[in-house]
Parts: sequence; C-alpha cells; structure tokens
Amino acid sequence: MKFLLFTFVGVVHLFSLNSGKAIYKNDNSQRTFQEIKEEVARYGDVAKAIINLAVYGKAQNRSYERLALLVDTVGPRPSGSKSLEKAIQIMYQNLQEDGLENVHLEPVKIPHWERGEESAVMLEPRIHKMAILGLGSSIGTPPEGITAEVLVVTSFEELQRRAREARGKIVVYNQPYVNYSKTVQYRVQGAVEAAKVGALASLIRSVASFSVYSPHTGIQEYQDGVPKIPTACITVEDAEMMSRMASRGNRIVIQLKMGAKNYPDADSFNTVAEIIGSKYPEQVVLVSGHLDSWDVGQGAMDDGGGAFISWEALSLIKDLGLRPKRTLRLVLWTAEEQGGIGGFQYYQSHKENISNYSLVMESDEGTFLPSGLQFTGSEKARAIMEEVMTLLQPVNITQVFRAGEGTDINFWIQAGVPGASLLDDLYKYFSFHHSHGDTMTVMDPKQMNVAAAVWAVVSYVIADMEEMLPRS
Amino acid sequence: MKFLLFTFVGVVHLFSLNSGKAIYKNDNSQRTFQEIKEEVARYGDVAKAIINLAVYGKAQNRSYERLALLVDTVGPRPSGSKSLEKAIQIMYQNLQEDGLENVHLEPVKIPHWERGEESAVMLEPRIHKMAILGLGSSIGTPPEGITAEVLVVTSFEELQRRAREARGKIVVYNQPYVNYSKTVQYRVQGAVEAAKVGALASLIRSVASFSVYSPHTGIQEYQDGVPKIPTACITVEDAEMMSRMASRGNRIVIQLKMGAKNYPDADSFNTVAEIIGSKYPEQVVLVSGHLDSWDVGQGAMDDGGGAFISWEALSLIKDLGLRPKRTLRLVLWTAEEQGGIGGFQYYQSHKENISNYSLVMESDEGTFLPSGLQFTGSEKARAIMEEVMTLLQPVNITQVFRAGEGTDINFWIQAGVPGASLLDDLYKYFSFHHSHGDTMTVMDPKQMNVAAAVWAVVSYVIADMEEMLPRS
Repeated sequence: MKFLLFTFVGVVHLFSLNSGKAIYKNDNSQRTFQEIKEEVARYGDVAKAIINLAVYGKAQNRSYERLALLVDTVGPRPSGSKSLEKAIQIMYQNLQEDGLENVHLEPVKIPHWERGEESAVMLEPRIHKMAILGLGSSIGTPPEGITAEVLVVTSFEELQRRAREARGKIVVYNQPYVNYSKTVQYRVQGAVEAAKVGALASLIRSVASFSVYSPHTGIQEYQDGVPKIPTACITVEDAEMMSRMASRGNRIVIQLKMGAKNYPDADSFNTVAEIIGSKYPEQVVLVSGHLDSWDVGQGAMDDGGGAFISWEALSLIKDLGLRPKRTLRLVLWTAEEQGGIGGFQYYQSHKENISNYSLVMESDEGTFLPSGLQFTGSEKARAIMEEVMTLLQPVNITQVFRAGEGTDINFWIQAGVPGASLLDDLYKYFSFHHSHGDTMTVMDPKQMNVAAAVWAVVSYVIADMEEMLPRS
Repeated sequence: MKFLLFTFVGVVHLFSLNSGKAIYKNDNSQRTFQEIKEEVARYGDVAKAIINLAVYGKAQNRSYERLALLVDTVGPRPSGSKSLEKAIQIMYQNLQEDGLENVHLEPVKIPHWERGEESAVMLEPRIHKMAILGLGSSIGTPPEGITAEVLVVTSFEELQRRAREARGKIVVYNQPYVNYSKTVQYRVQGAVEAAKVGALASLIRSVASFSVYSPHTGIQEYQDGVPKIPTACITVEDAEMMSRMASRGNRIVIQLKMGAKNYPDADSFNTVAEIIGSKYPEQVVLVSGHLDSWDVGQGAMDDGGGAFISWEALSLIKDLGLRPKRTLRLVLWTAEEQGGIGGFQYYQSHKENISNYSLVMESDEGTFLPSGLQFTGSEKARAIMEEVMTLLQPVNITQVFRAGEGTDINFWIQAGVPGASLLDDLYKYFSFHHSHGDTMTVMDPKQMNVAAAVWAVVSYVIADMEEMLPRS
C-alpha cells in the first residue's frame, strides 16, 4: 500500500455527489429488503462450500504456497524492474494454467527508480553507521555525499518555527507515529518542506508501528518550483537518539551518500483474468491486489497477499464449478507503490463502462486474520453487504466497517462505485510495511485461507445476485 | 546476557551439596519464622520511601536518563573495545560523583574480537544480499570469501543423518525457536558440529522470538581438535526462505565474506562501588549488571538496564540517608558476553570470603515491568524472600519464582550462595537481544523506575536484616 487517500468516508460522498445519476442502473429496484435478505440467505450452502474448500479442503494453504513460490523465485518487484516484468510473465502463465478465462495483459507506462548504493554515517558526536532506505523518486547525492550538520524537528510546525536554523543543514524529522495516514505525510512531504527552508537533505523517521532497527521506505513527492533534495528514511531508533542528542546540545554531523536515480518510464502491464458471467457478462465485480512491491524484503505482505487471495477467490469459485451471473474480474495492478499508476491507467481505459461495475474490491492492508470487511457505498448497499457478511458466520467474520478503499480502486469509489477492502491487524501490518521484513515469514497460511474465503464469498455472491449493488 | 547456564534449579542443588558446611554461618539461628516475618514487616515504611522516591519522587526516570546519556555517548561496548574502556572510565567517575564509597576498578584480562567487514550474497537461485552478523570469536574467511553450495538442516539430528551431504558446503541451520536456553545451542555449537562433518562455514538462524529481518549475534565456541570454520547468524526470514527453496529442490549457492579477527587479550576492569555496612561491614549483598555489550545497537537493554538499575539501587538508598548493617556492593561486570569473564575473575579473587555473601543479585534479562523476582536458595531463604517481596505490594510486584541466575553470579550460586534476578517480558527481551535493535527505544523510563524500586528494596532489606540469608 502506498498511502491512504481517505481518513473518513465523507470524502467519498462528496465525490459521488458529482457523479451522473444516469449511471445508477438499479436505483429503481422494486424489491423489498426482505426479498433481498431471502435472496442472500439462499447462498448459505454455496458460502459453506467455499469456506470448506478454502479453509479445510484441498485448497487450504494454496494461496500461501503459490505466493511463496513466486516471491522466493523473483524476490521484490519494484516498478520498472526486471523482477516485476518476470513476475507479470509468471502470473500470466499461472492464470492461464489455472483455467481462468480471458487472461490478458493491459499495457501501462510506469516509473523506474533505483536506489543504488546508499549510506549514512554519523560523524559527530560519535561515529555511527545508520541503516537507511532512500525514498522512492528521491534524487541521489553527489558521489562524495552531503556532509552537514543536523537540525532535528518533531513536526512541520517546529520546522517552520526554526526555519532560519535549517539553511545548509540536513533536516531530521522525529515525528511520533500517530497512525499511518497522518504520519506518512512526513515521508511524502518531508523533502519539499525541508527544501523550502533551505535544507540540503532530509532524513525521515520511518513510518512504522514497531521497529527492530528497521528502516521503512515508500514514495515521496517533489513539488514544482521547490528544489529537489535527496531524502531517505532512517530508523525510529536513530531518529529518537538524534533527538535526545540535540536536546542535550550535541552538535550532530552526518555524511549522506545516495546513488538513487530516476530512469525513463518502463513498459509494464496490469494482469487480468476472468470468470465470465453467465447472464450479465458485461457487468463486473472486480477483485484485486497489486503485483509490484518496494525493492526490499519480498513484497509478500504488500501486496503479495492481496494479489494472491484475489487469484484464490477465482480459483475457489472455478474449482467448485460455479459461474456467477456477472463477470468476476481479477486485476493484478502494476506500479501501485508509485501512486496507483496501473489503477489509474485501468480507470482511464474502462471508465466508460462504469455503470456496469457492481463492486470494486482491493486487498492491500494485509491478509492476516480479517476483522471484517471495510465498505464504502450507499446505506442501501451497506445493508446488503451486511447480509452477505452473515454468510461468513462459519469463520466468525461478519463485521462491515466504514471506509472501504485501495489506491487502485479509489478512482472508481470516488465516481460512485461501491468499494470493499479487508480490515485486519494494522499494527502488525505497519510493523513490516515497506521494510526488509516484508517476507513470507510474516504470512500465515491459515490466515490467508480465511481471508481468501471472505474474499471469494463476497465477490461471488455480489456477482451472482439478481441485481447490481445500489448506488447513492 | 550470554546464555542461560541453568534450565532448572536442580543443578544448583547438586553443586551446593559439595560446598563445605563450615561456610553456613547462620544455620543455627534460633529465631522462629514468626520473628523473621515481624522483622521484615518493620521495613514497610522504608520500602514505601524507596518506592516513592524511585517511582513518584525526584529520582523518577533517573536510571533511564543516566543510561541514555552513557549509551548515546559511547555506543555499544564490545569486549576489548575502546568504547568499553571509555564506558568504564565514565562509570568510575559517575560513581564517585554520586558519593558512593570504595569506588574502585578490579583488573580483568578480556577477549578482543572484531567483526570487520562482512557480507553474504545468495548467488543461486537468485541474487539476494543477506543481512548477517558474524558470531563472537568466529574466524574470518579468506579475502575472496567462501563460495559454496548450501545444505539446509533444521536440527543437529538432521545434520547427522545427512552428514555425507555436508562436506564442502555451507551448512544453514533453520532450527525453530523453542526457548533461548535450548535454541542458543545452535549458535554456540553450530560451527563445531558443521566442521565435524566437513562443512566450510555455518550460517545460523538468529535465536530470536521475533524478527523484522534482524540478525542477532552472540558468542560461539570452537572445540579443540575440530577445524575452525567461519560462522555467522542470518535472519529468521532468510533461514526460512532457504529452507523452502531447498525443499523445492533448488540449488542454493552463497558467497560469504567475513573480516572477523581475534586479537590478543585486552586490559579491562570490573567496576565496583559500595555503601559500607554499619554493623557487619565485611558481610555483603552484591547487586550487579554487566557494562559490556555486543557491538551492535547500544547495549541499552543487554545489559545497560541491569547495570543502571543496580547503580540506581545504591543511589536511592544513599539519597534516603540509609546505611544497611551489611555492605551493599555494586559490581558492573566486564566481558560478560564472552562467557562471564569479569564475573569469573571476581569469583576467583573473592571466593575466600564466600561465607560473608548473604545474597548475590544480577539483572540481565531486561528491566521492563518485572513479573517478580527469580530466586535460587534454600526453602528457608525462599520463605524469607517471599516475605521481603510483600514489601513491594505498593507496585504490585510480589511474586518469587524459581531459578534466580546470571552469568556473572552463577559461580557463587553454584557454591551455595542465595541468588536473585529479575523476571520480566522475555518475549520482548529476545525480540531485541544482541541485535541492532537493542537501543534506548526499547527502554521505558517508568518500567525502569519500578525495576529499580524492586532491586533497591530487596537488596537493602536483605543487607539490613539481623541475620544473613540461611543456606542449605
């Protein structure tokens, strides 16, 4: 996951007010809620069959094993890399061999950034080699590095107050971790704000809920008219230490070397496969995760897990010989980590069919044991979703939360399409997110089984119900 | 902490049977347990005063602040390093400035090992730079490194079964984490067992309860007559990945480079300070922690915390104007991580006075919120210790567990002296132990306050009671 676009669902509603009413096919449904409830209840046996196959049957641990094989084989898959290209080729073949339909690749131009060699050494008050990870899109330093005194701040407000001290220095942000969507602003905007006050570089405390001296990378954004300065994340531990040193009046000097480079855009693809609908094949329920990752760890959690439970949802439905009335479409996005590049391209290419999208789903915040489903949509649609989730009583995951979202599906949600995502242990997620620790060791096959069951039941039932989900 | 010598208290009793009866001064006490109980109860106000000063009063957060200043200033303090030397000098000055008595240094010859530059790169089945930490006392590789195929095993038993496959290879141990004292055998003996079957090097899964791709170092031991091979720890993540790769039949090749070197023994010191006893100055209650650490992180937890709550115990007692009947002796050990070198030297120098040691205490498994006190001693002594711990009711820490121990005090405990240590969150402790993550970020000032209060109350009351703790 790159960063959360919404912190509350209200934003979504503002957008959807502007969407054309003409696209709401089924807001004239004459069915009573009781009738819908009864329709959902008739999926009880199908839901049990999906759950049994995923959690207790021959498909158990399949999504974990498939994911382990891919990420052990190709490793991390950053935007523009050979390994992402290889992963897309492998997935294209996997989906065909799995017997899915209409397997194809949709072209996307994506950014290509490489970190190169990088290091940061504290020279004063004592020699200390620091773990760092350059931030995506950052420029590098000159080959001899940047050696400068440090100004430690704990907030943008403090930086403003002490703007005159920042000139010619390396700004270190030691912002506390509040939650991801708030705190990530320091990673995204830290370099720009530091450059505005004349800093030579910025080092940002990793946006993480937990640390064993682990730097956490991610995208950052330059601004037109503001000088580009090199920027990297440092560990929570080093940020806190420098903060203590500064508060004691120590002069801190760091030598920062970064070989980071931005290359011309690369060719890539969103990877698509379907189970074509039996009655309304033009109508779609979209399930998705992203195939790219950061260039450290294995991208097993972010977002291998989301991509592979999405594939698993289609595999489970196919294995049971089910074919929903609507088309179930799997999309494995490319270059999500660069700001949803693949998702945006897909939206541009397909938005003329927006009236045919019943539900868009993306899992990109972990596939641990889900607490429930996050959902954005009309209250009528939410009521239906709550009914659907009762089908997951056998695995005790029935809650529907607010704010379904995902970088790649937010374009659709903003335009009024109902959207769903999985909610699980975010503390765990942000302990490993964008770090060397995002590996298969974090993943649990049994938890992935359950997440896949939730994903398959929701997508199948919504794709098969007589009517599309109502919009606003 | 280096490694646990005892897994159950029975071992201690075996040793103590061989100790001369003559040293048990007070096994002829005519006092009833009721009288002892009443004596302990009279310390209620003193205990409250200590707790108030440490947890709520002007001394709160002092041990944390003192520790942060030291470890931020000198960094990690490996045996034989300049930084350990500097830390000892600073502490000598600190203890004098604190107004403690008989502050002095006792010479110890200690090992001097340096890891130098080190790297491990997986060349097959894909290129992957691995995080490693060479193990203490390991030899290095030739400058060009050792490039060899890998044999992955999950136990010494599997290595024996597959002994013929090991020749000329790098043995990777992917042993599961059971508990520290069991699993650490792979770190300590892994190289010797691999060398016995002809391996060129060994890489050992870090002995850790949790990992964010964090290698955990520690001591390892060569054996006479067995070839010395280079050995390092790898992350849990890489050990598990190579295990999966091997189970799929992948050929794994690693290039290992280690610049590790053993240098001649260095001069060092145990650092000692006292509050001299008012009535039985020759009798001793010893409180301690070790000042050396591994060469990564800050050695804040292992064992900065233990050393600094031990200092804090004396500071609190002095600040309250208390002087116990027996001498309260603080020892900050050197080179514990090399196998209790400082502790052994101290025992050799002082064991002729063993009959004067009422209690030996070492905190070396974390100074988080204590669950209680671990204690080794006679049942009569345990009953007294349980009474003493009731004095800590105001902070709700009253439990006395079995198996008090510490690398540096075990020499005394084996010879029959009662021994105590702090028990706290071992899962947390072994998440950071011997890793880059052992920094001040792990430490909590409020938890250190409470740990120091427990340490001070126990040491003061035992030092001040009319009789020494009874032995077997």
